[in-house]
Amino acid sequence: MFPIRYDTWRHVFKLDPDRTIGDEALDKLCASGTDAIVVGGSSGVTFDKTVDLLSRIRRYEVPCALELSDPSLAVPGFDLYFIPMVLNTDRREWLIGHHVAALQHFGHLLPWESVAGQAYLVLNGDSTVARVTGANAAVSEKEAVAYSQVADRLWRVPVFYVEYSGTFGDMGLVRKLRDGLTQARLFYGGGVRTPEQAALAARSAHTVVVGNAVYERLDAALATVDAVHNTAAKEHDHVF
Amino acid sequence: MFPIRYDTWRHVFKLDPDRTIGDEALDKLCASGTDAIVVGGSSGVTFDKTVDLLSRIRRYEVPCALELSDPSLAVPGFDLYFIPMVLNTDRREWLIGHHVAALQHFGHLLPWESVAGQAYLVLNGDSTVARVTGANAAVSEKEAVAYSQVADRLWRVPVFYVEYSGTFGDMGLVRKLRDGLTQARLFYGGGVRTPEQAALAARSAHTVVVGNAVYERLDAALATVDAVHNTAAKEHDHVF
Repeated sequence: MFPIRYDTWRHVFKLDPDRTIGDEALDKLCASGTDAIVVGGSSGVTFDKTVDLLSRIRRYEVPCALELSDPSLAVPGFDLYFIPMVLNTDRREWLIGHHVAALQHFGHLLPWESVAGQAYLVLNGDSTVARVTGANAAVSEKEAVAYSQVADRLWRVPVFYVEYSGTFGDMGLVRKLRDGLTQARLFYGGGVRTPEQAALAARSAHTVVVGNAVYERLDAALATVDAVHNTAAKEHDHVF
Repeated sequence: MFPIRYDTWRHVFKLDPDRTIGDEALDKLCASGTDAIVVGGSSGVTFDKTVDLLSRIRRYEVPCALELSDPSLAVPGFDLYFIPMVLNTDRREWLIGHHVAALQHFGHLLPWESVAGQAYLVLNGDSTVARVTGANAAVSEKEAVAYSQVADRLWRVPVFYVEYSGTFGDMGLVRKLRDGLTQARLFYGGGVRTPEQAALAARSAHTVVVGNAVYERLDAALATVDAVHNTAAKEHDHVF
């Protein structure tokens, strides 16, 4: 169904159109062997900045996806469009409202065969994404499991995204959530700054997202690619 | 995946545990040739009433599903459990909140291989379900399409339920919604009281649900089975 298969991605770099990245750094990231570049940010993103970043990434062969939280930023030409929906917020607009409003205007323009929903569980209350979306990050393990069941089994969403943006998360919880999924792919993002953390995350998540580290310690960020690819996802059984 | 396939159902009777149905009437309904009996109601339903109705339906071979909006009513022994989620409500609990709360307690007990999510679009503001769930039934056609896209394409939910409970709906809209779906099955419910209405609904929906008519004019309700089964779903193309 999808021109670009994301269900084999193990490692992804997430680049923020609102942050500066030099040509040399971008070259290293795109040629790093990562499975894909995901473009997205929580604030300050504009259409022009997104176009600019895409055109620079497009010089390389690496697949490039856009995480589309604001439809006015729907830049054409990406391989894939992820549409995030925040599970643990009381602000209806971030769960479903913005999406319904946007689809009324842009639904007929979307390349639906390249669109995939992402159900976000936001677990770091201090992150920008938590503040922007009003996420209730104080979620118990039982509650987190219940959210994953809603997303994976009631919705059947293709991507369940555990977002610890800014801090390295509880890998025991991440693994437990992944092991309970029946069809969704677990993306993990948050605080992966070293190859060691990347390897830990790779054992607990289907897909490891490396974001901020790119802007802080590029060499360490680049080293996460091999660290993830050399780590087997721990064997696990599905619940049924 | 599902022991009972509901993706071929064209006609369904919905019975309310809170309403009285005689043995003779129940016999006619269960032996009518309908594809399934769905048990569910919007108010006054109890565990004991649900057990009682199930045990009476179980004398027949017809598949029997429970629409489970309150987990304390999760009576074991049904072939299938539908879990409704209301798309067009501002009350978060009816969209996701009750589900997360309930799954924390009952998630490990559910026969997940027999569970299917239903995304409800509630379009009759005067209905009990609209009042109970606080649904905003004044939905434009564009908005309804957008809701169906969220459910079918972003969530990938298996059942998109267009609920006009109490009144016969806009079949043009229902057909448009069905024709835009890429994988979900459209259930239509509301005001189907005659074979003529049943035939109209059967041309616009994948599955026609006949509820209240059972309690009002049994013979006409029974005649809806053949009316639906003798009506071809209008040929339609998927959007892509």
